[in-house]
Amino acid sequence: MKTEVITLNESRNVTLTAYIQAVGGEFGNIVKRPAMLVIPGGGYQFCSDREAEPVAMPYLKAGFQVFILRYSVKQDAIWPNPLEDYEQAMELIRSKEEEWKLYPDKVAVIGFSAGGHLAGCAATMSRNRPNAAVLGYAVLGEDVKGCNPSAPDSIAAVTVDTCPCFLFSTRTDNVVPIDNSTRFMTALAEAGVAFESHIYSYGPHGFSTCDSSVQSLEGISVRAPQWVDDSIGWLKEILGDFADGCMSQPKCPLRVNEDHQPWLSVDCSMKLLQSNPHSKGILDYMFQMMQSGAASNYADNPLFKSESDKDGGEFNALSLVTNMRLRDVLNFGQVPENVIEDINTQLQKIENK
Amino acid sequence: MKTEVITLNESRNVTLTAYIQAVGGEFGNIVKRPAMLVIPGGGYQFCSDREAEPVAMPYLKAGFQVFILRYSVKQDAIWPNPLEDYEQAMELIRSKEEEWKLYPDKVAVIGFSAGGHLAGCAATMSRNRPNAAVLGYAVLGEDVKGCNPSAPDSIAAVTVDTCPCFLFSTRTDNVVPIDNSTRFMTALAEAGVAFESHIYSYGPHGFSTCDSSVQSLEGISVRAPQWVDDSIGWLKEILGDFADGCMSQPKCPLRVNEDHQPWLSVDCSMKLLQSNPHSKGILDYMFQMMQSGAASNYADNPLFKSESDKDGGEFNALSLVTNMRLRDVLNFGQVPENVIEDINTQLQKIENK
Amino acid sequence: MKTEVITLNESRNVTLTAYIQAVGGEFGNIVKRPAMLVIPGGGYQFCSDREAEPVAMPYLKAGFQVFILRYSVKQDAIWPNPLEDYEQAMELIRSKEEEWKLYPDKVAVIGFSAGGHLAGCAATMSRNRPNAAVLGYAVLGEDVKGCNPSAPDSIAAVTVDTCPCFLFSTRTDNVVPIDNSTRFMTALAEAGVAFESHIYSYGPHGFSTCDSSVQSLEGISVRAPQWVDDSIGWLKEILGDFADGCMSQPKCPLRVNEDHQPWLSVDCSMKLLQSNPHSKGILDYMFQMMQSGAASNYADNPLFKSESDKDGGEFNALSLVTNMRLRDVLNFGQVPENVIEDINTQLQKIENK
Amino acid sequence: MKTEVITLNESRNVTLTAYIQAVGGEFGNIVKRPAMLVIPGGGYQFCSDREAEPVAMPYLKAGFQVFILRYSVKQDAIWPNPLEDYEQAMELIRSKEEEWKLYPDKVAVIGFSAGGHLAGCAATMSRNRPNAAVLGYAVLGEDVKGCNPSAPDSIAAVTVDTCPCFLFSTRTDNVVPIDNSTRFMTALAEAGVAFESHIYSYGPHGFSTCDSSVQSLEGISVRAPQWVDDSIGWLKEILGDFADGCMSQPKCPLRVNEDHQPWLSVDCSMKLLQSNPHSKGILDYMFQMMQSGAASNYADNPLFKSESDKDGGEFNALSLVTNMRLRDVLNFGQVPENVIEDINTQLQKIENK
Repeated sequence: MKTEVITLNESRNVTLTAYIQAVGGEFGNIVKRPAMLVIPGGGYQFCSDREAEPVAMPYLKAGFQVFILRYSVKQDAIWPNPLEDYEQAMELIRSKEEEWKLYPDKVAVIGFSAGGHLAGCAATMSRNRPNAAVLGYAVLGEDVKGCNPSAPDSIAAVTVDTCPCFLFSTRTDNVVPIDNSTRFMTALAEAGVAFESHIYSYGPHGFSTCDSSVQSLEGISVRAPQWVDDSIGWLKEILGDFADGCMSQPKCPLRVNEDHQPWLSVDCSMKLLQSNPHSKGILDYMFQMMQSGAASNYADNPLFKSESDKDGGEFNALSLVTNMRLRDVLNFGQVPENVIEDINTQLQKIENK
Repeated sequence: MKTEVITLNESRNVTLTAYIQAVGGEFGNIVKRPAMLVIPGGGYQFCSDREAEPVAMPYLKAGFQVFILRYSVKQDAIWPNPLEDYEQAMELIRSKEEEWKLYPDKVAVIGFSAGGHLAGCAATMSRNRPNAAVLGYAVLGEDVKGCNPSAPDSIAAVTVDTCPCFLFSTRTDNVVPIDNSTRFMTALAEAGVAFESHIYSYGPHGFSTCDSSVQSLEGISVRAPQWVDDSIGWLKEILGDFADGCMSQPKCPLRVNEDHQPWLSVDCSMKLLQSNPHSKGILDYMFQMMQSGAASNYADNPLFKSESDKDGGEFNALSLVTNMRLRDVLNFGQVPENVIEDINTQLQKIENK
Repeated sequence: MKTEVITLNESRNVTLTAYIQAVGGEFGNIVKRPAMLVIPGGGYQFCSDREAEPVAMPYLKAGFQVFILRYSVKQDAIWPNPLEDYEQAMELIRSKEEEWKLYPDKVAVIGFSAGGHLAGCAATMSRNRPNAAVLGYAVLGEDVKGCNPSAPDSIAAVTVDTCPCFLFSTRTDNVVPIDNSTRFMTALAEAGVAFESHIYSYGPHGFSTCDSSVQSLEGISVRAPQWVDDSIGWLKEILGDFADGCMSQPKCPLRVNEDHQPWLSVDCSMKLLQSNPHSKGILDYMFQMMQSGAASNYADNPLFKSESDKDGGEFNALSLVTNMRLRDVLNFGQVPENVIEDINTQLQKIENK
Repeated sequence: MKTEVITLNESRNVTLTAYIQAVGGEFGNIVKRPAMLVIPGGGYQFCSDREAEPVAMPYLKAGFQVFILRYSVKQDAIWPNPLEDYEQAMELIRSKEEEWKLYPDKVAVIGFSAGGHLAGCAATMSRNRPNAAVLGYAVLGEDVKGCNPSAPDSIAAVTVDTCPCFLFSTRTDNVVPIDNSTRFMTALAEAGVAFESHIYSYGPHGFSTCDSSVQSLEGISVRAPQWVDDSIGWLKEILGDFADGCMSQPKCPLRVNEDHQPWLSVDCSMKLLQSNPHSKGILDYMFQMMQSGAASNYADNPLFKSESDKDGGEFNALSLVTNMRLRDVLNFGQVPENVIEDINTQLQKIENK
């Protein structure tokens, strides 16, 4: 492993520390590595050592190239200085693909507390978007004004283009209120962005890796240290894992449906397709045909007919699947592939607005 | 273990199945046990066996008495029938403290999907409030109307009196949108209710315990089965754990602060105390005294003075602690206990509104 | 789940309690289940409740049919009574394949302490051999005489026909010395039998599942409870896991090599083949040909030539692979498949003695 | 973290690489750290990079100072060169207590394969004994001759002075036979040395940390990576964990009893005390007194009397406790402390031989 400290901005005292692991040789199946950029916290007043090197270690163990960004703090933290520090770091990292032996499309970021705010801004509003972001007990909403009045609300900035996010924190955090995490998640959910999150029952702010060498284990849930391994497992699902000379395909689908695309399709949710009068017409006609038996081989599928049970009640199973993609519903109903494609062609002519 | 099926409502086909473990004898240190009431899902159309006995097993292993409620479904699910089924079950369970050897103040509930909705209603609006609730990929908001139009939104019902909650689900759930969980959490955060949550990256709706015998492990994150052990760990933090002939004290604090109490105190957050003109006056006077050095032994504490660093910037550390309780801030500033009590006495005369 | 108590031997008070889970219906992909027979400990003086039902729960959760055997104790424990109780139970279980919906070739046994002795005897000397055995802080050697003078040493009975075993215990066990486990493992290693083992740093005898409801967690390593999940993971590797209407292929190879077979083959270890004069002749001739370059395409493989390095030292890489199967060595050396088969044909004519 | 490469022996190309973490400052509660010396494997032919830096990372994360020893290989590996390399490294590490901020009595060693042999020799026969040893799929017995004919059998060298050991390996290792581990454990058990061990069901030799970046996860048990965290947990039990400015007391008792001391005591096992004619006389008299009721308040304790049950059988509970310390038996029998001390005084006059 080679260690290198690069000055990004001398006047603002901004540095990037690189921890570069070997490829080839005994690591013969590895030609490049994914990368992790660590952004320590410190209320935009300092960059905490507790959230720097101890955090680098587990990602190095997992095979990542790791970088630590020490960004503009105190009066230098006036916006957009910290975000520009990040942009500069990420540009440099991706430009050194060959020298540092890393995959430029597999560079994640992890930030804690105020560093989590900066990572959240990287995820939502940067030019050099990371490929995944881990946000630890992060300040994400308006609360950031308390430590940096010029810094923006990252929750309001969440869009469909926000990168996949992994959030963790403790519910009893008395520095950064837990609704910073829960509101950010709701924004991700609305925007259809991939995420995972773990909110542990209790524990103080600033627990870093929750190793006994950085955090007293009194007063914090025994589950809190689990975020480290969980974040690594999640990164493998999002970025892929080491395979023979390359990285495997990611296992985690980035989208639940295509509800955020400009044109409709069978990959949109039933709910969306039923809320648009043009697509609703197509669906109504289609289901009517199915229920009437015109489409013979799936006429008996319980999904496509109202059920009258022994007690006289009635229930339409379609009401249970409004959040599924139309494609899933049709597949479940064993609708032939060519029929599905016909419907898709019709839907793709309708604008999603 | 004794197994017993009790009919709660014959006409609506409501039953409670009890799994009662021994106490005393070789379990000599156990005189009573905590209890878990399992509420399976099924879209208020049926009660799923996949979310019944397989769920009972881990809590039995952990030492709980376990009950499964099969509640009113289909046309019988018209509100408030299912909630009344729950009320009846919980009343019965607590009334049989001696016969069934359980602690009536340590009865949790776990519900899945639509059963998670019913458990969420138990947590927020029941007369017989559970002592903790585990909510698995639960329908919690208005989405419940899709399967039971008469059922209420449990998110809107969250108050300070909601019981502690543990939530888990997968982000890509295409039956119950994930914002059911994230919005419920935000409501809990606002109401100051204890919770823990785990949202896994991907996986289908309805994975139950995520054992290979109830759920194909293809297409779901390897972390998903972890909710089972995590929920047990959490229950021990909330209800206490087996000790010698009793249960130990819970480790998880139920409140972060006392901001939801009718009168102010030093256990309210700085933010709340600064937002009320009466308490703000008291705080301002107090901090002025401290900064002026009148309160000699903590005059030098950096918390209580503005900092002018070498570059001319200025930063008031108090802005970082607005979410802490005043008591924590004063303790951190080494303010003497009798001074804290004086301030408390003054604050307790101010109404919290 | 149906629970049933069957009297196996009234005069000796021997019973089998069955916990039978449903198949089909909502468990539609399950037609039968693997099974676990639980044998509690108690020094052949009683059958401990602490090692009965609490142990059944995790295997029920994992999808097994579970049985508890309460066998002959006190003066009835005179050998071979307890082993005959086991034989009777195992015969009954396998005979009820259809009624109890279980795979008769996937019936494991788990025993604790003296029950671990009985499970060890089942694994090594029974007529109705289990398909896998879990041995918890088991009495396996001559120490069993202390509690049952007529009982046999199961370590001495280990042969190639012993079933796969999973052992766990604590090193500081002051009732059953830890060498009961380590000597049993050495016997398994010598006989080429599959096993896994976990010896935890410290803890008392008799910790059962190490749940707080059966064991004080003071004075025992925090890793001890891990044996439960590990044993389930191991059973899936040995017996296969639930697949769609069947069980998947086991992942764990039962043999490292074929050194315990009556005739030699390329699947025997280099060590064995070199120790037999007939096979040694074949190997010597083969390697000589390879080193001389007669077998052109693998002549340069470093495995097949002595290395003289810059410092004049010499090292034959073959000395590092004496425990590998000849097949692995030849594959590593890229020897063509037809050459390997020729060699195999020659070796299979040589008796292994 | 500072990284430093120190040449220990230029002619044999022996180096020690140091990874030194900060103390004080933000790690204010840490004044020194425990240390780990990593010894890579490679058949005494090379030092594998796969078992060097990837292994350092988890111990750095856990808060240790870490060192990697690259020792004499090939013709330089003639004994005792590698052991002398170790001695030199360990002496240097302990001598730099102040500069490298480490606890000289909390320096562990970890070795893999042939490096595990060297670590095993460090544990059993070095002048500078480590405080704990982690032995990964280690060559421990005579098998070492295969790769280094001059190297000694470490199993034969195990005595009561061997340091606590943690062993892990896979049962199907086809390079180092698993009985290297099981026989070493039996030797530790006989010598009364503290240990923990994990033998996983299957997997190849040389899996290092079992991260996907160093080892293909095909063909190895999913439990194999667990050794890393388990070894850290074990080290904390043996060496203590970070406390406030110091290390806490170890939780793992180093001895089960005092059977390896030169003089007898009540802390010796019943078995030992009954096998020595002098101490047996004392015990017999004592138990006779107890059974006769002469020692009134514990006369009724079932431990001290033969039991005749309803069926005419007879059982002496003392036969179950022969491996317990006499002190434990007497405490269990509620024998008064002063009586115990009297007995102890008598026993301490008897030589243990």
